[in-house]
Amino acid sequence: MNGADSLCTTLLDNDVDVCFANPGTSEMHFVAALDRQPRMRCVLGVFEGVVTGAADGYARMMGKPAATLLHTGPGLANGLANLHNARRARSPIVNVVGDHASYHLALDAPLTSDIDSLARPMSHWVRRAASADTVGRDTADAIAVAREGKVATLVLPADTAWTETRNTARVPAASDEPADMPAAREIARAAQSLRNGRRTTLMLGFGALTEAGLATAGRIAQATGARLLAATSNPRMARGVGRVPIERLPYPVDAAVAKLKEVEQLILIGPTEPVGFFAYPGKPGRLAPEGCDVHALATADHALEDTLQALAEALRIPADGPTGATPGRHLPDMPAAGRLTVQTANAVVARLLPENAIVVDESVTSGASFFPLAQGAPAHDHLQLTGGAIGLGMPMATGASVACPERRVVNLQADGSGLYTVQALWTQARERLNVVTIVYANHAYNILRGEMAQVGGGEPGENARRLLMLDDPCVDWVGVARGFGVQAERADTVERLADVLAAALAGNGPFLIQADIAS
Amino acid sequence: MNGADSLCTTLLDNDVDVCFANPGTSEMHFVAALDRQPRMRCVLGVFEGVVTGAADGYARMMGKPAATLLHTGPGLANGLANLHNARRARSPIVNVVGDHASYHLALDAPLTSDIDSLARPMSHWVRRAASADTVGRDTADAIAVAREGKVATLVLPADTAWTETRNTARVPAASDEPADMPAAREIARAAQSLRNGRRTTLMLGFGALTEAGLATAGRIAQATGARLLAATSNPRMARGVGRVPIERLPYPVDAAVAKLKEVEQLILIGPTEPVGFFAYPGKPGRLAPEGCDVHALATADHALEDTLQALAEALRIPADGPTGATPGRHLPDMPAAGRLTVQTANAVVARLLPENAIVVDESVTSGASFFPLAQGAPAHDHLQLTGGAIGLGMPMATGASVACPERRVVNLQADGSGLYTVQALWTQARERLNVVTIVYANHAYNILRGEMAQVGGGEPGENARRLLMLDDPCVDWVGVARGFGVQAERADTVERLADVLAAALAGNGPFLIQADIAS
Repeated sequence: MNGADSLCTTLLDNDVDVCFANPGTSEMHFVAALDRQPRMRCVLGVFEGVVTGAADGYARMMGKPAATLLHTGPGLANGLANLHNARRARSPIVNVVGDHASYHLALDAPLTSDIDSLARPMSHWVRRAASADTVGRDTADAIAVAREGKVATLVLPADTAWTETRNTARVPAASDEPADMPAAREIARAAQSLRNGRRTTLMLGFGALTEAGLATAGRIAQATGARLLAATSNPRMARGVGRVPIERLPYPVDAAVAKLKEVEQLILIGPTEPVGFFAYPGKPGRLAPEGCDVHALATADHALEDTLQALAEALRIPADGPTGATPGRHLPDMPAAGRLTVQTANAVVARLLPENAIVVDESVTSGASFFPLAQGAPAHDHLQLTGGAIGLGMPMATGASVACPERRVVNLQADGSGLYTVQALWTQARERLNVVTIVYANHAYNILRGEMAQVGGGEPGENARRLLMLDDPCVDWVGVARGFGVQAERADTVERLADVLAAALAGNGPFLIQADIAS
Repeated sequence: MNGADSLCTTLLDNDVDVCFANPGTSEMHFVAALDRQPRMRCVLGVFEGVVTGAADGYARMMGKPAATLLHTGPGLANGLANLHNARRARSPIVNVVGDHASYHLALDAPLTSDIDSLARPMSHWVRRAASADTVGRDTADAIAVAREGKVATLVLPADTAWTETRNTARVPAASDEPADMPAAREIARAAQSLRNGRRTTLMLGFGALTEAGLATAGRIAQATGARLLAATSNPRMARGVGRVPIERLPYPVDAAVAKLKEVEQLILIGPTEPVGFFAYPGKPGRLAPEGCDVHALATADHALEDTLQALAEALRIPADGPTGATPGRHLPDMPAAGRLTVQTANAVVARLLPENAIVVDESVTSGASFFPLAQGAPAHDHLQLTGGAIGLGMPMATGASVACPERRVVNLQADGSGLYTVQALWTQARERLNVVTIVYANHAYNILRGEMAQVGGGEPGENARRLLMLDDPCVDWVGVARGFGVQAERADTVERLADVLAAALAGNGPFLIQADIAS
C-alpha cells in the first residue's frame, strides 16, 4: 500500500465513496489507487469548475462529502469559484489537490505555484500531507472537518502518494457528536421577543429550511404572528405541497430594505445579518432598519431544526399545532398558447415539475417568477447559487443527480452563467444523468444591463454593448449541447416548451431545452 | 472624472488600448468609463480563462500589455490558470480586478473573498487601490511593472472607481530604460567556454528566440561548433524559412536526459537550468549531467538579443558570418491520400501554413511531428503553452489574432485541453478573427495514458478508463463550434483535411476543423 492507497482506503472506510476528478500527471498514483478500488465511484469533469460544483451539488443532497481530485495550483484555481459557492453553502467537501513531489518544488518546474495561498481563501481548512505515513490521518482529519459543513483542502505531494506506508485512519468519534445548540438563555430571549407584541421576523437559512425546520418555524409563526423570511440565497430549501411556504429576502437593495422596513425584531436562525450583495453609492450596506433589534440566535454551525424545536417548546406551542404548510396542489394554469416569455416559461416548468424533483436554480434574472408558482407544485428541493460566483448551475445539477439518481433534476439556467461551465453537459452525458436543463436564452448579461442603467445613465454605447450583450453571435445552445452528447431542443412558444419538457421529463438521460424568451 | 475614468485615461495615455473583459456589478463604473472612451477596444470573454489567455496571446505578439477586467475573487480565480501561463511566459499584463467598495468588505457579503491572497501566486505585483485619487498612479505603476514582462494585478474597490478625482498619471520614464545586460565578465567567461574545445550547448529561451536572436546564436554556433537548444516550452519562437532552426529540449525526462548526456558546458541565455516538468520515482529532477558546467549567463530579465550580440562580438565573429538559417522552403510532401494520422495531419498543416502565420500550439501529445516539418514552411511565429496549465490554446489564439488581425492564426489544439476554455470560440466569432483551430480528436487524455502505463502497470481498469478517456461520449467538435458561431468541418482523411484547411485559410473569420485521427 502506498500513500495514494491510504488516501483511497481512508476515504472509503469513512463513507466517502464518490470522487469527482480531473487528474494530471502528479496524480497518477492516486488514479492507480482508485483503479484498484472499484467501490469508489469516479466521475470525470472535463474542467475543474465542473468537478467542484458537482461536489457541492452532491454534498447538498447527501449531507456528506464527496472527494475531489484536482491537478496542482492551476487545476485548483479552475475549481475555486465553485469552492467559493460551496464554502458559502457550508457544503462538506474533501478537496484533494495533487502537487509536485516535495523535493521537486525547489526546482520551480513550470507547473509549480503556491497552492496553499490559492486554497486558503476558498477553504475552511488547508493541510499539506507531510509524508505517506501521515496521509491516512490527514485524510481522516479532512473528512472530520468537512462533516462540519466545511471545505477541507488536502494538498498531496506526489511523493507522499507513491511512497509505501501501512497507515490508514478512522475519523475520530468526536466528529459524530451532534451540532451545537445556542445557549438556553438565547432561546429564552428569542421566545420573549416573540411574545412581546413587537413586529418580529424569523429569518431562516441553511438547515432551518428543511421540511421539518420549516414546519416548526411555521408553528411558531402561526402561534405568535411572527413573519418567516428566508435568506436571499440558500443552499437547499424544502418547497412545494406539504411544506411551509416562505418568502426570500429580495436581491435588489431597495426591495430588500422595503421588505424589512417595518421589522422591529429580526431573529436570525442560520443566516448572518442581511447585507447588500453589492455596495451602491448612497445606499445602505446593512439592510435591517435603524433601531431594529437584530438577534443572531443561531448560525449555520448550530443544529437549526433542534434550535427551532427548542424555541417552539420554550413558547409552549403544541407539537401538532398548525404550520401553515401548503395543503394541496395549486399548480399554475398552463399559460395560453403563444410566444414564450420568462413568466410563461416559468409557469410551464412549475406546472410540469415532477414529484420529488430537485430544482437547481441559476436563473439569475429570469427565474424570479418561478419561485412563488412552484410552492403549489409537488414537494421538491430548491438549490440556489450561494456565493454569487456564476457557473454553478450545470455542475451542481450534475452532482445532485449523481447523489440522487432516482430523482429528476431540473436546472433553471441563465445563459450567461451557463456558458461558464458548459462542459458539465459532457459529464451529464457520460453518467447518463436525468437532468433537464432549461436555458433562458436572453443573449445578454441582463442583470448587468439593469446595473448599467443605474450607473451609466442613458443608452449604453458601443463598448458597454460589447461587454453586456451576448447576441453577436447568439449561442446555439442546442448545437452546443448535442456536441457534448446531450439531447436538446429549442422552444419559443408555450405549447412547444410544454411538449418538449414533458417528453424530456419522461425520457432517460440528460436533456437541454433552449427557451427562446421574448425580452 | 471618477476613479474609473482615471484608470481608463491612464491606460490609454500609456498606450494600453485593448481591454479583455468579463465584468460584473462591482465593475459597472469601469464599464461606464470604457463606454465613454471609444478609443479603448473592449473584447468580451464569456469566461475569465478566455480573458486572461487572450491577454497573454496579445502580449506575446505586441510586446506590450493589454488590460483585463475581472469580477471579484471568483472572476480572478477563473482567470488564474492562464495568468499562471502568462507569468511563466513573462507576458506583460495589466490585470484589473474589481472588488466590493472598501467599506463593504467588513460585511462579508456573499461574493467577498481574499482577492490579494488569490492574486499573489500568479502575479509578479499586486496592489489594491487606496482611493480614487491614487488610481491613476496605481495604474501607471502597474503598466510600468507589466512592461518588464510581468503580470501586474491591480485590485479596484468599487468606491475607488465611482468617487470623483482629477488625477491621471504617466508611466515614469525610468521604465523606458533598456533591459539590463549581464556583466561583461560573464560574457567573457561564456566566450572563453565557447573556445575551450569542450562540448558546449547554448540553451535559448524568451527573447533569444526572435529572428535576430536566433541569427546571432546561429553565427556563434557556426563559428564555434556549439550546439543550440531551445527550452521545452517557449512563449514565442521565430521559425520557418530564413530563420535559424533549433531543436527543443524534449518533454519526457528520459529523452531530455539523453539529449543533454554529452554536454560538458551548458550556457543559459534566457531559461533557467533545465528541470523535469514532473518528478518521477528514481529519476533526476535536474536534467543536465553530473559534472556539467551550467552557466546562467542571462535570464528572461536581460536584453537577450543584445547579450547574444555581445557574446558574438567577444568571440570576434563577423557580423555577416553564416547563421545556418534555413535557406529555402523544404515543405513536406503532401502525404498520400488515406486515413488521417497525427503524422499526416501535421504534414498537411505544415505544408499549407501561410506566409507569416502565427502558430498557437497546445497540441500536447499530437503536435510533436509538426515542429520539425514546419521549419521548412514560410516564416512564422510559434507560440507554446509555457506554464503547463492546459486551456490556453484557444484563448491565446484569440488574443494573438486581436493583436495581429492581418496575420493568419493556426491553433494546433489537443481535444482534452481545448475543452477547458472552449468558450473562446465565441469571442473568435464575435470579433470575426482569422483563426483556424485544428482539434486533434483522439478523445483521450493521451499524455496521461502514457503516464498511467508507467505507474499503474498492466491494462487500466474501469476507474482509470473513466478518468483518462473522453470517448463516452465523443465530443462533436463541429457541433460545439457551430453552436458558438464558428464555421466548422470534420476531416478523417488526408485529402479532406487538405481541402478543408485550404478553404479555411482562404476564407474570413474563425474556422474549426475536427481532425479525426486514427490512434
